[in-house]
Amino acid sequence: MAEEQDVALAEPEYVEHIRRKADDFAGWYNDVVRKAELADYTPVRGCMVIRPYGYALWENIRDALDGMIKATGHQNMYFPLLIPESYLAREAEHIEGFAPEVAWVTEGGGEKLSERLAIRPTSETIIGPLYKRWIRSYRDLPVLVNQWVNVMRWEMRTRLFLRTAEFLWQEGHTFHETTEEAGEEAQKMHECYVRLAEDWLAIPPLTGRKTETEKFAGADYTLTCEWIMSDGRALQTGTSHHLGQNFTRVYDITFAGRDNTRQFPFGTSWGLSTRAIGGLIMAHGDEAGLVLPPRVAPIQAVIVPIFRGEEEAARVLDAARALRDELTAAGVRAHVDDREEKPGFKFNDWELRGVPLRLELGPRDLDAGQVTVVDRLERVKTQVPAADVPGRLPGLLDDFQARLLERARAMRDGFTVEVGDREALLSAFADRNSVAHGPWCATDECEGEVKDAARGVTIRVIDDAEPPAGATCAACGKAARHTVYWARAY
Amino acid sequence: MAEEQDVALAEPEYVEHIRRKADDFAGWYNDVVRKAELADYTPVRGCMVIRPYGYALWENIRDALDGMIKATGHQNMYFPLLIPESYLAREAEHIEGFAPEVAWVTEGGGEKLSERLAIRPTSETIIGPLYKRWIRSYRDLPVLVNQWVNVMRWEMRTRLFLRTAEFLWQEGHTFHETTEEAGEEAQKMHECYVRLAEDWLAIPPLTGRKTETEKFAGADYTLTCEWIMSDGRALQTGTSHHLGQNFTRVYDITFAGRDNTRQFPFGTSWGLSTRAIGGLIMAHGDEAGLVLPPRVAPIQAVIVPIFRGEEEAARVLDAARALRDELTAAGVRAHVDDREEKPGFKFNDWELRGVPLRLELGPRDLDAGQVTVVDRLERVKTQVPAADVPGRLPGLLDDFQARLLERARAMRDGFTVEVGDREALLSAFADRNSVAHGPWCATDECEGEVKDAARGVTIRVIDDAEPPAGATCAACGKAARHTVYWARAY
Repeated sequence: MAEEQDVALAEPEYVEHIRRKADDFAGWYNDVVRKAELADYTPVRGCMVIRPYGYALWENIRDALDGMIKATGHQNMYFPLLIPESYLAREAEHIEGFAPEVAWVTEGGGEKLSERLAIRPTSETIIGPLYKRWIRSYRDLPVLVNQWVNVMRWEMRTRLFLRTAEFLWQEGHTFHETTEEAGEEAQKMHECYVRLAEDWLAIPPLTGRKTETEKFAGADYTLTCEWIMSDGRALQTGTSHHLGQNFTRVYDITFAGRDNTRQFPFGTSWGLSTRAIGGLIMAHGDEAGLVLPPRVAPIQAVIVPIFRGEEEAARVLDAARALRDELTAAGVRAHVDDREEKPGFKFNDWELRGVPLRLELGPRDLDAGQVTVVDRLERVKTQVPAADVPGRLPGLLDDFQARLLERARAMRDGFTVEVGDREALLSAFADRNSVAHGPWCATDECEGEVKDAARGVTIRVIDDAEPPAGATCAACGKAARHTVYWARAY
Repeated sequence: MAEEQDVALAEPEYVEHIRRKADDFAGWYNDVVRKAELADYTPVRGCMVIRPYGYALWENIRDALDGMIKATGHQNMYFPLLIPESYLAREAEHIEGFAPEVAWVTEGGGEKLSERLAIRPTSETIIGPLYKRWIRSYRDLPVLVNQWVNVMRWEMRTRLFLRTAEFLWQEGHTFHETTEEAGEEAQKMHECYVRLAEDWLAIPPLTGRKTETEKFAGADYTLTCEWIMSDGRALQTGTSHHLGQNFTRVYDITFAGRDNTRQFPFGTSWGLSTRAIGGLIMAHGDEAGLVLPPRVAPIQAVIVPIFRGEEEAARVLDAARALRDELTAAGVRAHVDDREEKPGFKFNDWELRGVPLRLELGPRDLDAGQVTVVDRLERVKTQVPAADVPGRLPGLLDDFQARLLERARAMRDGFTVEVGDREALLSAFADRNSVAHGPWCATDECEGEVKDAARGVTIRVIDDAEPPAGATCAACGKAARHTVYWARAY
């Protein structure tokens, strides 16, 4: 058997035509999404098509999160796509937040409708009226439900996955007897989003509450995960809202309490969307394309057979397929690339698609009883004895997952700057993107003023930590009430 | 240990308020759907809400079918919800078939749109234009994709699951080099629908082609599964269409063939919707409510603890939960009903919900080391030694599944009448519903004439069998070309 050896990867023979990340981040992003065949534009303004590779990625994310949603006692269901305008409009803050982005159905079955129907931008306003029927007593609580659906928010400027008129998401909706229980629920689902990000997607989020101006329209407060991208911007992904009694009062949902009085239940809602795929790309991708976390990668290991002539082809392809079957049996999502293309083309293609491990198999490898394993993250080659590959690959994938999380954490920490005063805060954003951490006075005015002064910098999240006694706001110098993270965001 | 014994089930102590199936089939159906909490009406005209129990059933059906779709080489993806009118209208037969049922979006983002956008009634007309971009050469074929989505067909008269403006389904879409390959594909997916019906849903469908008047708008031909309901009507569930080059010519999708000429690929599409749940209810349900096939039942075995007083309660509930955990470990979807209700209420409630096996567990059962197993289908009680329950339940569930299929087959065959002439054909439908099988001349006129003469009787499916030489049409007496099944349908 061959000795193991690590070899630095040669420059790729063929280079995919994606724009350089270092020069044109937005162009690079768009090229990666389209050329890795994750998603594409359509003739329908603002709406994307999610292609098989992108959808398989979404299925893996969905299944991971759905498992957590069910394990915490929630059930899936399905609410109508359309919401009558009179229902949508009942909660004042909510309609104010969503009205500008609504797509309206006004004709159906050949007739003009008497009332406009909104395509759901989110479903609180149809779920409320339905649960009004079904909630009678405290015995009917808590209600713990979720749905995986499409929603629509009409956007003028769209970007694949990040901002599209139509997107896919899950939205959880719950009702509880007490505000404490609703608070615990919002926290519990927030923690699911943290776990999804860290354990599955290798992204360590900043976590905490949103400010009053950034919270969900109609919520008492919003908990958020803010993912830090490799350009230093933040991406809000996975938010949980304590809705208080705001929606239950508006929709007159009441229950007979344990003391037999009529009471309004307390609500929560929480959601995570296909934006998460955009986040994965921008957090982990590099100049060669995507880098996917093994736990959600549609293909964890791609086998590239290398041969010349038909005789070699038969021998190598047989071995490649046998190896794939062994890997599948070992629980690895493996694929043999048997396309009629040159190996160099395939290497680049699978790097672009972010497959964690590439297994090269040629006649010399077969003779030596070995497989060449190439790591997408470190881009090194290692010879592994063929017989060991199925046994070792699960461990190599776990190791890849851990290294990717560590790299993302280091990247996030690299952008983070502690700021104590206005000069430090503004200079952190003067010629670059940063994640600035420091004390804040908790006023809307100060928040808005920084947004203007530092070109779009917003408070992404209020930390759980209290500011030190006597600390002053890094932005305006008044007494500090919280510590927060400022950043530019998608 | 107790001897096993079968005991005829006593009359239920409490009767749920569902209308009698024998007297009012439609009323019974509606009551079962709503009171078993599968689905309900909403304030949105024609749109239903699918409640957790109904959605869990749909998830099980979806997962079974999705497994077959993937095992046959298809990949899931996601196409836009909205289709511009100009795209929808390009295929003439197609738009004629669907236009009356379209819901139109005419306003978005606060502005009137320059072109109306249809909420997809089906997606051929957006998939065509997209694949025009992606199909270049024969190497890009076959394209084998599918999506699980909501669609909308504006209906004036709606019935939960059977006919709703919005419903959920999967729609598969494929492109092939040759008409033969497209034909094999349509046949292969048709067989998946047959397998889903027989192996998972315990429904033996009638299978074959649709007539020209009943085929999909825009197809060369349509293969169908027709499920026979317990009132003798048919329900079309799972159709596969050979689209020929109809859509690829309209959308100008071409590929460079092996001989380097530009050619139009051949298409198929195939779909199955939440209608299937309506079919399950009407095929298997009885006066007590639903009867669910174990392979898709959200709960396969419900454990009802029986006790008086707190001391007994603790002992029985502990044993019930331990039994549930053992059953879960044995791969059985088990549930303990620990609600504060009387056993008689629970018995009826779980019968209404169609749970295949009920396990009654009381202090006497515990003392005797036994569990009382009640079969939803035969409604008999059997004492089973407690230690044997986890080992035996999977087999009892398989047996239940097999008996349910046999019952459905016997029911279908009971409705079937061989007809050779007009009198036999019409009398089969004079005062009842039947499934009439006989020779047919294959003319549209004859088909339409029977529909009028026999109040809504249509040809559900053209048999694979050839009519005997010299046979004449059972309806009009002309020379027969096919044998067919006539029935009234949902």
